Amino acid sequence: MDHVHLALLMKNAQNSLSQGHLTMANPKRGSTAICGYDADAINIRGQDLVNDLIGKVSFTEAWLLQALGKPPTALQLHIVDAVLVTIMEHGLVPSAIVTRMTAYGAPESFQGAIAAGLLGVGDRYAGTASECGAVLERIVTANDREAQALAEVRHYRKIRRPLPGFGHPIHRDGDPRVERLLTVCKDAGVAGDYIDAMYQIEKALAAELGKALVTNISAAMGAAMAEAGIPSAMMRGVVLTARCAGLVGHLIEELANPAAPAMWDGATAVVDYTP
Amino acid sequence: MDHVHLALLMKNAQNSLSQGHLTMANPKRGSTAICGYDADAINIRGQDLVNDLIGKVSFTEAWLLQALGKPPTALQLHIVDAVLVTIMEHGLVPSAIVTRMTAYGAPESFQGAIAAGLLGVGDRYAGTASECGAVLERIVTANDREAQALAEVRHYRKIRRPLPGFGHPIHRDGDPRVERLLTVCKDAGVAGDYIDAMYQIEKALAAELGKALVTNISAAMGAAMAEAGIPSAMMRGVVLTARCAGLVGHLIEELANPAAPAMWDGATAVVDYTP
Amino acid sequence: MDHVHLALLMKNAQNSLSQGHLTMANPKRGSTAICGYDADAINIRGQDLVNDLIGKVSFTEAWLLQALGKPPTALQLHIVDAVLVTIMEHGLVPSAIVTRMTAYGAPESFQGAIAAGLLGVGDRYAGTASECGAVLERIVTANDREAQALAEVRHYRKIRRPLPGFGHPIHRDGDPRVERLLTVCKDAGVAGDYIDAMYQIEKALAAELGKALVTNISAAMGAAMAEAGIPSAMMRGVVLTARCAGLVGHLIEELANPAAPAMWDGATAVVDYTP
Amino acid sequence: MDHVHLALLMKNAQNSLSQGHLTMANPKRGSTAICGYDADAINIRGQDLVNDLIGKVSFTEAWLLQALGKPPTALQLHIVDAVLVTIMEHGLVPSAIVTRMTAYGAPESFQGAIAAGLLGVGDRYAGTASECGAVLERIVTANDREAQALAEVRHYRKIRRPLPGFGHPIHRDGDPRVERLLTVCKDAGVAGDYIDAMYQIEKALAAELGKALVTNISAAMGAAMAEAGIPSAMMRGVVLTARCAGLVGHLIEELANPAAPAMWDGATAVVDYTP
Repeated sequence: MDHVHLALLMKNAQNSLSQGHLTMANPKRGSTAICGYDADAINIRGQDLVNDLIGKVSFTEAWLLQALGKPPTALQLHIVDAVLVTIMEHGLVPSAIVTRMTAYGAPESFQGAIAAGLLGVGDRYAGTASECGAVLERIVTANDREAQALAEVRHYRKIRRPLPGFGHPIHRDGDPRVERLLTVCKDAGVAGDYIDAMYQIEKALAAELGKALVTNISAAMGAAMAEAGIPSAMMRGVVLTARCAGLVGHLIEELANPAAPAMWDGATAVVDYTP
Repeated sequence: MDHVHLALLMKNAQNSLSQGHLTMANPKRGSTAICGYDADAINIRGQDLVNDLIGKVSFTEAWLLQALGKPPTALQLHIVDAVLVTIMEHGLVPSAIVTRMTAYGAPESFQGAIAAGLLGVGDRYAGTASECGAVLERIVTANDREAQALAEVRHYRKIRRPLPGFGHPIHRDGDPRVERLLTVCKDAGVAGDYIDAMYQIEKALAAELGKALVTNISAAMGAAMAEAGIPSAMMRGVVLTARCAGLVGHLIEELANPAAPAMWDGATAVVDYTP
Repeated sequence: MDHVHLALLMKNAQNSLSQGHLTMANPKRGSTAICGYDADAINIRGQDLVNDLIGKVSFTEAWLLQALGKPPTALQLHIVDAVLVTIMEHGLVPSAIVTRMTAYGAPESFQGAIAAGLLGVGDRYAGTASECGAVLERIVTANDREAQALAEVRHYRKIRRPLPGFGHPIHRDGDPRVERLLTVCKDAGVAGDYIDAMYQIEKALAAELGKALVTNISAAMGAAMAEAGIPSAMMRGVVLTARCAGLVGHLIEELANPAAPAMWDGATAVVDYTP
Repeated sequence: MDHVHLALLMKNAQNSLSQGHLTMANPKRGSTAICGYDADAINIRGQDLVNDLIGKVSFTEAWLLQALGKPPTALQLHIVDAVLVTIMEHGLVPSAIVTRMTAYGAPESFQGAIAAGLLGVGDRYAGTASECGAVLERIVTANDREAQALAEVRHYRKIRRPLPGFGHPIHRDGDPRVERLLTVCKDAGVAGDYIDAMYQIEKALAAELGKALVTNISAAMGAAMAEAGIPSAMMRGVVLTARCAGLVGHLIEELANPAAPAMWDGATAVVDYTP
């Protein structure tokens, strides 16, 4: 196509086609069921934010309404709060180091330091509850749960990835949070299907590997959230929200009492340049 | 320093100088008062996470302990929860659009879409509560609060920036959330110094500009959080945590029912290419 | 473990165990072959930055040295430059919209707006060259390339994901950049194995699907970079660098001539709230 | 499509006002001068990407065209390339540590690790060339440059911030890159106004502080870019692009030879938990 053609085409279309992917005769539309607003009111999932929610419900309650579409039960609230408390803070883990190191260079951007820290909540560390939750969902909905658990274990061995939720670099003999979180769930009266599925995986792993692998906090959180009706697609979001809060604590401490210069030294002192 | 010297020095220091900024004899150390852990326990602000916190305190309670260093009062909890609920969700604001558009290209990274959305919680929009809070802090600690309020208004006019917390593109006649949040504070029995400071600014603005400027939700949130003992340095962190949660809701909806393709079309249809 | 125990343990270990994962007697060390520096010199891959590189080599040349470990050939330089030019700019794609929307809220953080835009360079859109490159690598190193191409096509059908690099929402009849980039490669005298592998996939796709699927720019970039000796693990990094530059152009235009308010309106006008 | 059609379409679409900030009678429109495209062609700043740019111009040349709106001169190209090479790589600086630590948790998101690293290119470290460039611009356009330089020094002292571009934690006796970059500029035949302004600041700082403060690489880059006609508003973008490339090198090394576990240990070993 020559330039004259392009210019004409653009002019004729009054530039509406200049971005190329718009079919005006039948424009795609999207929809959201979360929130609508005008100058007078903000409506969230059919409820009035100002009159129904602010000052009347807790953060966790408003959030579960917003994300899941209906008011949460007391059991859901209790368990999601427990999960949020469990994962909010674990000292100078990579996310906290990242947030602090980022603030060292860019103290002007609070949100940038937080966002940087959250970016490490991923598939290998910190963000594995969601994938573990998906495994648990598949087991619970299977006809033969024991067989499905074994199939999951074998699948991960075949693709040479650790099954998310099992094994831990620090808490080799068991993370103390795991037992506690499961107790919270049981005390709250959950049905227990997903926790059972977690035990099925433990058994299948031991059978396949010939040795026990510690059940880590991601598995416990995945099971707990599943018991509370949180879909696995949302589970990493619960972790991110908890960690966002925790990183805020680290960032305000860092801005008042910087540890980043020392951590920079400490981190580089153990890495050799070998060209 | 010559390269031979450098080589020797590196060898002697076991490469600790290879990154150049480490004084091994007297390395800088940092400190944190937030959290320490070992294989058996996680200690947050002197409390045992497993035995004292999980399942016993709400998310907001654990967070305020972690970030501020001591257990929050009931008033603090009530107000921070109200603020979190206030700012969690406001429909398809830029942050929500950004999270959804980011997931369009990179659905594999839940955390990336959330982080992208949070990056817009900034100085001009969404993140202004903290700067407004700092203004309120300066007024409340001044000998003459009225004079300080006027000085603040004049300072912002001089540097040609809007005073954060006042004026709004949508809610020109008053954001309905403002009155509600202030009522929550008053009903909870706050001292009222920061809310008064907010009114001082309103008065000073009207006097200086010759017309009233609407008090927006950032001012109300800044005042509310200050009443609850949240330092201004942390206020953007409260907004980020609330928005993180809200963006999680948008992201799981987007992954199930994409609006991004339509929004892409809609956004580009209103922008002309004029080379 | 009780608190006394914890306190003692921490004290005895000089706090080194407070973060739980450090074995002081035998600390892990890392190594890097990229760069070392001291107060007088910066050494990159064995070359002196100041005397050997600044003002003497182009950006692309210095980068390929830094990333790949040895000075690039003229062919590598030519092709990587062509790829960078190809993918730097494509109008108001989601990344550009995200960068602009992020700057709307947070104009104070140039880096935040750029980072947000880059976060959308992902597995589904914009970042697919790397995965396509990995497919091409597997085909070229296979004993039977035709069989491997067919196996790849079948694998992606089985896991119900599009094979990266094929199909396009806009350029349905062929992206004009594809032919051009391949011509650049051929004119430069590449061996052609990876381009052939790309054609093998085209053939296998047509055979499996019963219809041709357009080869998109990610496939062409993957093939071009592979011909230039760029490993697939780096390919998304080339796209990110080009897009980073392109987003800088969008951001400085946005700060001078904002399109974000219009795009916000345009994006939300096509999304309905249906609670 | 004409505008009437668009208006009707929007009116008919019900709920289009549900997002509240759209004035339908007179919708805002935005414009961009960077790029337009359709199914057949991509036009950048009036040039055809496929026929005029790919394979014909270098990355830097295409970028300066895209960002500045006209083809760059040879002098511009030479200096911007020199700046990009200067700042691409400086070993395990915070950005590189952050990228590597982020990949530790989230190896699935190449773009997330890069974005995290870029977020530290900020006002205090790594991103200061832009602010220094703005100071240089004000000096060069002032009637009395010497007086303006002094005024700038005094302004930064008054607001208790370091004047960006002067002072350095590592290169206390002078960063070797500074002299080299200035030499490149002079050899290329720049006019020299901005470099002179930089020397004016050096003089003013020495006069005000009673001692010399080293001119760091941000000042030299700011002056060099200003000499090449890069506006200060774009300067951080040049640094970001160079660092993006450098971080790609770090990330592919990290994924093949992880240093993050050691750096995590090293960073935390120097931070004490003191509740």
